[in-house]
Amino acid sequence: MKTYNVGILGATGAVGREMLKILEERNFPVNELRLLASKNSVGKTIKFNGKDIKVVEAKIGAFTGLDIVLGAASNPVAIEFKDDIVKSGALFIDNSSAFRMDEDVPLVVPEINKEDIFKHKGVISNPNCSTIITLMAVKGINKLSKITAMNAATYQATSGAGINGPIELFEQMGTLYNEYKETGIIPNKGKNIESKVFQHQIAGNVIPHISSALDNGYTKEEMKMQNEGRKILHLPDLKVTCTCVRVPVVRSHSIAVTVYTEKPLTVDAVKAQIAKEQGCKLYDDLANNIYPMPIVTSDQDITYVGRIRKDLISDNGITLWCCGDQVRKGAATNAVQIALAYAGLEF
Amino acid sequence: MKTYNVGILGATGAVGREMLKILEERNFPVNELRLLASKNSVGKTIKFNGKDIKVVEAKIGAFTGLDIVLGAASNPVAIEFKDDIVKSGALFIDNSSAFRMDEDVPLVVPEINKEDIFKHKGVISNPNCSTIITLMAVKGINKLSKITAMNAATYQATSGAGINGPIELFEQMGTLYNEYKETGIIPNKGKNIESKVFQHQIAGNVIPHISSALDNGYTKEEMKMQNEGRKILHLPDLKVTCTCVRVPVVRSHSIAVTVYTEKPLTVDAVKAQIAKEQGCKLYDDLANNIYPMPIVTSDQDITYVGRIRKDLISDNGITLWCCGDQVRKGAATNAVQIALAYAGLEF
Repeated sequence: MKTYNVGILGATGAVGREMLKILEERNFPVNELRLLASKNSVGKTIKFNGKDIKVVEAKIGAFTGLDIVLGAASNPVAIEFKDDIVKSGALFIDNSSAFRMDEDVPLVVPEINKEDIFKHKGVISNPNCSTIITLMAVKGINKLSKITAMNAATYQATSGAGINGPIELFEQMGTLYNEYKETGIIPNKGKNIESKVFQHQIAGNVIPHISSALDNGYTKEEMKMQNEGRKILHLPDLKVTCTCVRVPVVRSHSIAVTVYTEKPLTVDAVKAQIAKEQGCKLYDDLANNIYPMPIVTSDQDITYVGRIRKDLISDNGITLWCCGDQVRKGAATNAVQIALAYAGLEF
Repeated sequence: MKTYNVGILGATGAVGREMLKILEERNFPVNELRLLASKNSVGKTIKFNGKDIKVVEAKIGAFTGLDIVLGAASNPVAIEFKDDIVKSGALFIDNSSAFRMDEDVPLVVPEINKEDIFKHKGVISNPNCSTIITLMAVKGINKLSKITAMNAATYQATSGAGINGPIELFEQMGTLYNEYKETGIIPNKGKNIESKVFQHQIAGNVIPHISSALDNGYTKEEMKMQNEGRKILHLPDLKVTCTCVRVPVVRSHSIAVTVYTEKPLTVDAVKAQIAKEQGCKLYDDLANNIYPMPIVTSDQDITYVGRIRKDLISDNGITLWCCGDQVRKGAATNAVQIALAYAGLEF
């Protein structure tokens, strides 16, 4: 069996560590594994298949001999090393948003557009986390009738902001809980809350602001669902309105979405199709309290779909609720799946 | 000045206690105040304007001599006493959902349809909390051009489930925090979590299920936005698709909503109108991290509106985010405002 020399750029972050775990779980045929990170992390060791692997510095020349580099670093780091990675002959499967909309860079969710992988010119981008989870949920609908538009509101977990997101959430939860125990009063806004990762207190709050503001009043994060959705689904005219909201959840993004299609669809047809879709689980029995939730879907690769019903505005609309682990399928798993599909293996 | 004998039915609950506070704050011209509750609460005293008032039993005959009864009890209790309240000559301003859709019962948000108050036949209903907050945010838009449809996703606080909602949230937050401190691992689903108020763990989770399931796949709560919205706005053809979600927040419901109007509107015109609207605060400066959030809007009567932008699906759509204290404006304040307007006073 062919084996690959695999590098992880940003190996010590939340997504990098998860990539390592998933390479193990999926038995990716790894020959050499090279863990690359910033100077600060050099010398740390991380276990892979029982062996301690030392973290080496990510620098020009550090990618020589690699076949695949999984990128789990920030945009500036991805931009800094892209040319060197490509020059060294490796395929760069990058989770940053730096190259996603570049014309010669495929943007891939393997269950949707695996064929785009083979058009790469050295770089393949991994899509945005909420976009992946949402498209996984609606890809079956697009087979029944072309999707023309979507209206989405997200409920995004704190781990989307990296390892420190859930820590900030939990420290604030502790502070609020202690204030309650001391005073007997349940506080909305804590007296001694520090916010470093998020713009505001996240425990006991929701923040309708993820990434930076654009001139049209949307955030960059909100526009990704339309821009990346068009590219992945090969639907250049797709229209998406999105509101992205951070919620006090550890892992798994949830999305309330109305999907508009060319032809009207029945709820039964949609349910039957979603039940058949690779990577999806139909989880829809409201009367018995069965629907996707973060506490149900985390630490898995499957996108759960429920609350499927006819939209009440348009006969061509289906409204649903989906939820999936954004560190896994929304980032690390999807990148490893691209590598598996690239290697001609089951993903 | 005319004074009123006022009763509160369900005086010891979350909404009942808030009604008492607001009667004080607004200097409602109270002559006698009668606090009515179930047998269990009889003998308790609650302070009103510095005086201790004893809770009496809510039973047939207990409403004699009252001019206004503010209802803060469940549907069965409201149904049990409605006829007796009306027979005793009092106006019943009821926060339950029991009579909201009855043809001879006005459903009122005073800033929107004050005139309906005077069509009452003994009962006026106070609308659903999310519906009030959403309609407060969009009422200005409806003046610029008739609203034809809305697509809403809610982020509803635990206090919407009564006094025990936030207690369950905080006890679970404490349990999760302690598990984290003991194990060093941040849990998604706690090991020792008890859920009594909500269907599932609410701390660190979101639950797309409020009230009971209907045959069309929606919940009762979700259908209220369309049914009650039509009645309050006098828009019998209004179409509303809604997803109602419980989030781990203490107080204040937030709503992401797209509003479709007969004519296209500019963002500037919408902002200018909302800034002028009674009971609304335009709070919209994304670049400076200014937008409505529960920690900003709680313990106030104002609905905050922000993130106002053109919808990307239809030129006739405006997408926005609003947030307001659902125990106050979403329930108790609105009921007291109805009483004030009924009495011909400023509300």
